[in-house]
Amino acid sequence: MANYKLTIAYDGTEYKGWQYQPDQRTIQETIHRALQVITKKNPKIYGAGRTDAGVHALGQVANFHTKLSIPPDSMKKAINSLLPPDIRILKCEIVEERFNSRFHSKGKVYEYRIYRGEIVSPFHYRYVAHVTNSLDIIAIKEASKFLLGEKDFSSFTSDSSWKSKVRKIEIIEVNEEEEMLYFKIRGNGFLKYMVRIMVGTLLEVGKGKISTEDFGKIVEAKDRTLAGPTAPPQGLFLLRVLY
Amino acid sequence: MANYKLTIAYDGTEYKGWQYQPDQRTIQETIHRALQVITKKNPKIYGAGRTDAGVHALGQVANFHTKLSIPPDSMKKAINSLLPPDIRILKCEIVEERFNSRFHSKGKVYEYRIYRGEIVSPFHYRYVAHVTNSLDIIAIKEASKFLLGEKDFSSFTSDSSWKSKVRKIEIIEVNEEEEMLYFKIRGNGFLKYMVRIMVGTLLEVGKGKISTEDFGKIVEAKDRTLAGPTAPPQGLFLLRVLY
Repeated sequence: MANYKLTIAYDGTEYKGWQYQPDQRTIQETIHRALQVITKKNPKIYGAGRTDAGVHALGQVANFHTKLSIPPDSMKKAINSLLPPDIRILKCEIVEERFNSRFHSKGKVYEYRIYRGEIVSPFHYRYVAHVTNSLDIIAIKEASKFLLGEKDFSSFTSDSSWKSKVRKIEIIEVNEEEEMLYFKIRGNGFLKYMVRIMVGTLLEVGKGKISTEDFGKIVEAKDRTLAGPTAPPQGLFLLRVLY
Repeated sequence: MANYKLTIAYDGTEYKGWQYQPDQRTIQETIHRALQVITKKNPKIYGAGRTDAGVHALGQVANFHTKLSIPPDSMKKAINSLLPPDIRILKCEIVEERFNSRFHSKGKVYEYRIYRGEIVSPFHYRYVAHVTNSLDIIAIKEASKFLLGEKDFSSFTSDSSWKSKVRKIEIIEVNEEEEMLYFKIRGNGFLKYMVRIMVGTLLEVGKGKISTEDFGKIVEAKDRTLAGPTAPPQGLFLLRVLY
């Protein structure tokens, strides 16, 4: 069996997220249909991360097994020819049979994009959150440091299962470029809504509604009810998956 | 009567062009509905140019008259609050009552965007034409000079009416930037499909299907059947209207 690794970009606007859901248009299901046509089988697709509805990807990774032996570049063209233009396979490689894009991932890099100008361009509204409040960027940067390291991130997820909420955030960068504000976050794994709740809570710090000190306490508290709102999906991009 | 001048940006993907058409979703009709709500009247909207279905604008201009006296900035906010996010009023001004955005226009600047790489990004496919043939850019630049000046552009329009086809092209620039190719065209007026047929025919020159010399003859011939195909709408942007 050949194991094909796919690097995928998508505009998530028109999809209910990555993960297969009955009667919903999802990224995984759309790619699955293309693979059914090519392989005439029903290959299981393993995705590195489950992006939410409306969230985008510049470098999602997935893999699937098939008995077919098609050169990777031909496979890429075949899949792209069957996909809608808002999903593109950027790269296709044959990898070790035991490689699993989810379990072998060492981490992920996300970016969250905020537009702070008056009018969101008709060409950008699908790809930014719009925040018009004045923001204390220094306070945001200071507070963001409380997120670094290996911690229990229960305050920053909607997942209330018994599973471990311990993850390690390795890098968090806050950058202003003209009217844009970018959060770049690298970690070894992410809980459901984790990036969006982190950004939503850091924005409360920027607006002066939560002090930097209290932000640190929210991290320690492991209590979702203390953190800020979940930032909207359209500002979030999965930049890449690390192996 | 106050005369409001609007500068408008739109993503034309979801619209059947600028101009009102019965039972079609158009830009003019969408703005008209917003103005009906604000003015409680039925104001006529004059647009500077009739962009085709799928064509975009960064600086379309329109005007309308109303007895209301709302400060321009409040008018802008009111209209934007009623428009979908793919149409934005960038600027609103009160101008002389006799100003007409169409009849007083001295010219327009259009840009046509072509992507030449292998895979069109899911974030760009709505805004570029995709051309993968290798192109002789020097030949395109040379041929484009035949379009400059005041001429009868019958070879470059689908409009077969008796009306004058004489227009003046003042600037035509061809620029490469990495995998993008941009055509920028300024003229005192444009016929139906004129920019798209010009670009479509210049691309035939780039592909070596029409010689530079023959391109000059096509301009002189005033015969649409000799020119190349109409380039697709999604690469075309109305950049600005000149007054």
